[in-house]
Amino acid sequence: KMLMRVLCTVLFMGALPSLAEVSQGHISVILLGATGDLAKKYLWQGLFQLYMDQVSSGHSFTFHGAALTALEPGQRLMFDVLKNLACPPDESPDRCAVLKDQFLKLSQYHQLKTAENYTVLNREIQTLLRQEGLKEAGRIFYFSVPPFAYTEIARHINSSCRPPPGAWLRVVLEKPFGHDLESAQQLAAELTSFFKEEEMYRVDHYLGKQAVAHILPFRHQNRQFLDPIWNRHHVERVEIVLKETVDAKGRTSFYEQYGVIRDVLQNHLTEALMFLTMELPANVSRAEEVLQSKLQAFQSLRGLEKNSAVLGQYQAYASQVQEELQKARDYISTTPTFAGVLIHSDSLRWEGVPFLLASGKALDERVGYVRVLFKNRAYCTQSETLRDAEHSQCKPKQIIFYIGHGALNTPAVLVSRNLFKPVMPEGSWREAVGQSNLRIFGQPLSDYYVYNPVKERDAYSVLISNIYHARKDFFITTENLLASWGFWTPLLDSISQQPLRLYPGGVENQHLLDFEMVSGEVAFTLAEPVELLNSNRLMPNDYKMIQAKFRQNPLVSAWSEELISQLASDIEKTAHKTVAESGQFHLALSGGSSPVVLFQRLARHHYAFPWKHTHIWLVDERCVPLTDTESNFFSLHSHLLQNVRVPYFNVHPMPVHLNQRLCVEEDRGTELYAKEIMALVANARFDLVLLGMGTDGHTASLFPHSENGLEGDQTVVLTESPVKPHQRMSLSLSLINKARQVFVLVLGKGKHNITTLLSRVGHQPRKWPISGVSPSSGQLVWYVDYEAMLG
Amino acid sequence: KMLMRVLCTVLFMGALPSLAEVSQGHISVILLGATGDLAKKYLWQGLFQLYMDQVSSGHSFTFHGAALTALEPGQRLMFDVLKNLACPPDESPDRCAVLKDQFLKLSQYHQLKTAENYTVLNREIQTLLRQEGLKEAGRIFYFSVPPFAYTEIARHINSSCRPPPGAWLRVVLEKPFGHDLESAQQLAAELTSFFKEEEMYRVDHYLGKQAVAHILPFRHQNRQFLDPIWNRHHVERVEIVLKETVDAKGRTSFYEQYGVIRDVLQNHLTEALMFLTMELPANVSRAEEVLQSKLQAFQSLRGLEKNSAVLGQYQAYASQVQEELQKARDYISTTPTFAGVLIHSDSLRWEGVPFLLASGKALDERVGYVRVLFKNRAYCTQSETLRDAEHSQCKPKQIIFYIGHGALNTPAVLVSRNLFKPVMPEGSWREAVGQSNLRIFGQPLSDYYVYNPVKERDAYSVLISNIYHARKDFFITTENLLASWGFWTPLLDSISQQPLRLYPGGVENQHLLDFEMVSGEVAFTLAEPVELLNSNRLMPNDYKMIQAKFRQNPLVSAWSEELISQLASDIEKTAHKTVAESGQFHLALSGGSSPVVLFQRLARHHYAFPWKHTHIWLVDERCVPLTDTESNFFSLHSHLLQNVRVPYFNVHPMPVHLNQRLCVEEDRGTELYAKEIMALVANARFDLVLLGMGTDGHTASLFPHSENGLEGDQTVVLTESPVKPHQRMSLSLSLINKARQVFVLVLGKGKHNITTLLSRVGHQPRKWPISGVSPSSGQLVWYVDYEAMLG
Repeated sequence: KMLMRVLCTVLFMGALPSLAEVSQGHISVILLGATGDLAKKYLWQGLFQLYMDQVSSGHSFTFHGAALTALEPGQRLMFDVLKNLACPPDESPDRCAVLKDQFLKLSQYHQLKTAENYTVLNREIQTLLRQEGLKEAGRIFYFSVPPFAYTEIARHINSSCRPPPGAWLRVVLEKPFGHDLESAQQLAAELTSFFKEEEMYRVDHYLGKQAVAHILPFRHQNRQFLDPIWNRHHVERVEIVLKETVDAKGRTSFYEQYGVIRDVLQNHLTEALMFLTMELPANVSRAEEVLQSKLQAFQSLRGLEKNSAVLGQYQAYASQVQEELQKARDYISTTPTFAGVLIHSDSLRWEGVPFLLASGKALDERVGYVRVLFKNRAYCTQSETLRDAEHSQCKPKQIIFYIGHGALNTPAVLVSRNLFKPVMPEGSWREAVGQSNLRIFGQPLSDYYVYNPVKERDAYSVLISNIYHARKDFFITTENLLASWGFWTPLLDSISQQPLRLYPGGVENQHLLDFEMVSGEVAFTLAEPVELLNSNRLMPNDYKMIQAKFRQNPLVSAWSEELISQLASDIEKTAHKTVAESGQFHLALSGGSSPVVLFQRLARHHYAFPWKHTHIWLVDERCVPLTDTESNFFSLHSHLLQNVRVPYFNVHPMPVHLNQRLCVEEDRGTELYAKEIMALVANARFDLVLLGMGTDGHTASLFPHSENGLEGDQTVVLTESPVKPHQRMSLSLSLINKARQVFVLVLGKGKHNITTLLSRVGHQPRKWPISGVSPSSGQLVWYVDYEAMLG
Repeated sequence: KMLMRVLCTVLFMGALPSLAEVSQGHISVILLGATGDLAKKYLWQGLFQLYMDQVSSGHSFTFHGAALTALEPGQRLMFDVLKNLACPPDESPDRCAVLKDQFLKLSQYHQLKTAENYTVLNREIQTLLRQEGLKEAGRIFYFSVPPFAYTEIARHINSSCRPPPGAWLRVVLEKPFGHDLESAQQLAAELTSFFKEEEMYRVDHYLGKQAVAHILPFRHQNRQFLDPIWNRHHVERVEIVLKETVDAKGRTSFYEQYGVIRDVLQNHLTEALMFLTMELPANVSRAEEVLQSKLQAFQSLRGLEKNSAVLGQYQAYASQVQEELQKARDYISTTPTFAGVLIHSDSLRWEGVPFLLASGKALDERVGYVRVLFKNRAYCTQSETLRDAEHSQCKPKQIIFYIGHGALNTPAVLVSRNLFKPVMPEGSWREAVGQSNLRIFGQPLSDYYVYNPVKERDAYSVLISNIYHARKDFFITTENLLASWGFWTPLLDSISQQPLRLYPGGVENQHLLDFEMVSGEVAFTLAEPVELLNSNRLMPNDYKMIQAKFRQNPLVSAWSEELISQLASDIEKTAHKTVAESGQFHLALSGGSSPVVLFQRLARHHYAFPWKHTHIWLVDERCVPLTDTESNFFSLHSHLLQNVRVPYFNVHPMPVHLNQRLCVEEDRGTELYAKEIMALVANARFDLVLLGMGTDGHTASLFPHSENGLEGDQTVVLTESPVKPHQRMSLSLSLINKARQVFVLVLGKGKHNITTLLSRVGHQPRKWPISGVSPSSGQLVWYVDYEAMLG
């Protein structure tokens, strides 16, 4: 009844909405967790701001705070918060006071605990609207509650609190949205069973930061300047950074489960990354177009590896965790509080440009920024001292979206004056004027065009306004969320046992956390860390690489990653040596999954490989078209050849596809390949043959008891595999054994039994073809990882 | 007789050489042009320095000045110079005075004009040596004369002044060594008819500059630091610069023939470039090894094009030339006095690294340097203000060979402190100590390790000493010289009609001469020059590109360079459009010489081309193996495919080579190719076919009156060419005419007649196959250059 009267009061105040406008309908906002920290700090203020902004929109509003607390204490708690709502500086104090009074009257507390509670809430809203003769426009449910409570609340809303047909439902969700891809998928699946995609508004409050929110509009409005330079030819690097001075004290129960990558990089910094890298959709405010571009941009990201990140933990963290979580004195946390990550996009636009994401707690300053540094392509003939400071092309060229804090202490967009004068929307951004002695990113502030928001707005106010306006482009869709987790989860998995660099915190960190890019990886600049966490654990690096003998031949053994990197180096060394001697390097490569990692390593980390002088041969091939994803050559092409520059003439796929049919004997593919080898490889002795080994002891496509290839002089043979596709083409044992060097790569636990067996048996190629590999005048080296070796 | 006595005096002075040492033999130095400018300024002083340094070496010396001037006046002129020889600061004045006295006594003037004069000189040397009982070690002839005099002097020396067997001859030559490749070859051939290669010492006095001479030793001695970073992964750019404040006044008769590229870039700066880019030989002081490395480095240089350079001329130059050379008031000089050139090496080590060479007269400062700037690969987590200045990896990293003058005003080697502390030879370079407020290349001097020569030595002293020591690595061999001219001549030819930017000179130049790199080319930064030289001449750019009709189809016409660039853009546009529509782009390309320029342009300037989705087909092929240099595919591969990333599967060479024989009908290559087209190209309609046209009206490999391909439905045919290699494979007219677009490219005067003819005749494919090109439902566009169009 009180509410009814309030609505009437509101409706008939002079400056306030007329009846006609009110016919837009009524909006009920239900804030779940109304007395929690986030609500106190930002959400109620954001709702009040919404009310002030939209009071004349034609919508009427009611605000329902809800929590588990019983009615009376809950009410008290909530109204204590509401009484302290602030009036924004740009609002007249009189109007604000009136509106605040109304806002309080439109607000109500509910205990929402049981299914019954939800039914009651729904009934109250309906009754009110009926009594006031108001049409219902929609309901906003804001989940400001821990994620474990999501499912139950969602179920209640879905079953008892949906608005009637014709009115919309918007549920607003706060992170964390899972812990990795799997948990995020699970949570998403649960939510999807209650809500439609368009009903869910997942908050990443960075999208409400004014500088971040302006990235896409900026790119759009400055298209004429950016089109020629927003690419790998002009951009030298991009930095996306959020540095904090605070640490995790008091929040370790949350932080210990998440760490800096899940807390900041997977969401906030990744979203900024997407705004920078995505192809600009025709309409930058159409959520669907933005989403599609964003998903494409995610697909272009190169997968992260263990060495894509450097990780640290501030020294006091361990004791904070021990204390707050009641852990033992020797408890070691592996949660990173600092991370620097190098990301590459393989899109045509960004190939090769380093994107550096960094964030950490207990650093020397609080600041957030997105910085695009352009290449210097100029030579300035005039000497430095005489250069016109403002327009010299030899000064750095940068565009910075300054998120906040730091030296500027305000959101800003900065564009180097020697780049262009940007187009900025006049209503919302204005050029900063006046003198300043500040230096930003190595240059005096006067070297930039600087813009600040006309009205500085808190991220939550921005977001709440965007929920009201149904601007879904400011929120994270399920697809977007899962794409991001899909990108980050492999890194999170691979670093879970990674040592962390300890840092003292604050200014004391000095250069401890500086890091550098080397061949697509990152490493701390100071090579000898003062102290490593987990250094007393047994880490893979602590095993020495084993150099020993296996079946009378040299054996190299290590964890698979080290092993692959050693193998790749050995292949490169052999290649250089052979090219120096004979001008050519004939390399025969096997198919299968193990070599894929090797191919990627060769493509990404061995830039000096003499590809121009290398001939690539296949050890074996499946009888499928070369463009079939099952083809060994296709895999070799995708993971290696398309990334390096082997001349077309030096690439020798097996001719399994002739006369538009596969491996038909009359087409004489084996003969053709044998002739090609004879014609190009001196004495048909390959310089290096890389083999794998199957669990049944097969190698190349020579299977146990094969009729062809195990004995006799044939060089290339057709064989039958016990598994599909059955038909294969393969080099024979006799040809393999002519090679100068043969490397056998064996990876994984699955190969442990056959490896053990092999260590005991002699030369029995009919039973175990691999045992027949024994170069007549060449060298054989085994590369066996610890898992295959030790089980 | 005077000389004899002097020799005895010298021999018996205490601190001076003993008889045993003297048995090393006698050296006669003959300075031709003994009274000229260079001799006065540097050479006599250099010879005196040689004498001071080597007086105790065991060699005895005589110095013979020679010129065309008669004996008495010549003698007077020469001894006026000798009397003014300076004592170096590090020499004791007493010893120097004694030695200078002796030097004067060992020096003699000769008039060398006639053959007789040379015979007399030779006799005098022989007589002296016989009388003194001295063995002859060798003779040095220093040519300090204009190049037109070279041949005659060389002939005289060869015929009458060679030392006896067992003694060596060294002739020292001063540039210019020709004006372009042809003239240099001619001069070299003449000299080679008189002297052996090992007898010739061509001077590039930059090789005597201490900082330049130290590049190779520096690279060698700092191998451990440089090996990982001296490559494209770490070097951002290299600048090799010689700026002068003086202009050409008083020297225009020389300068007007040469200009800045021939005067400075072709020799001095190129030699420095070679020292930087060459692979380090095992022994950096073995001339033969250095030469071989250098020649290899020359081979890796990417050819220069017109737009590889920006050119300027200082404003006063024109009037200086008019005055000094008595030219008419409207005489326009096309000689550049400023040049900035972008050079790329395609070696594995340097691919993609820009090497900027710049030099000019009438600039704002006098300075010479070689600057290697490294990439910044670091991210510094600590904020800028807190960074440790000395070791931060976020500061620029540079190595500078400072040749002289400029702010430092001394030769120096500078290495950024955040790189490494270099190894320097203690005897000859020492670390600079003390404070300085200088800033060098954007950083305070204190950011560098700075080394200066222990003893600053004039380039000519260094070189004369190296002639004495037979250090041929300090001189330019014939091969080296011709390699350099071979590299520069195409640029010199292509820019001879290029407009020059006028600059006022000195500080007034402001940013007029700053330039920028864009897609492998350079251009002045300020796009609108104040004034262009030659702007009233008819330049190719002044023709508007003609858009008209030819044979009822669209015609694009321009000078060949513009035409090719337009064609390349049009192909890229078509490619993007087609890929957007169908996901693929099927492009059929012709062989021959015209498309080569197009291929290069596509490879170098069209980075955004959708190669990944492009299929490359051949319009025609010669019946030779694909790896034969005559093969169309080989040319396509060399100029385009090896530089871009077309997937292996999308490349479709014609199967002219099957079963190890060429174009045999039974091998059914045409059928194979037709099937491949059917299988991959929807309706066998290529998206774009690029054709050329022969002077006989042939197109593809369809020649007049061909039995195959001109009529009927066959798609791929074997044909006969009137020229070798006769056998060809070709797409047929019927297949070509199915294409969606056909572009015909016609270049050069040679095509004028057939072009004219074609404009008149109708559809007569048997007579002129090109006239049968008429896409049934596609578009035909003619790209004909002005030379073909206008003759």
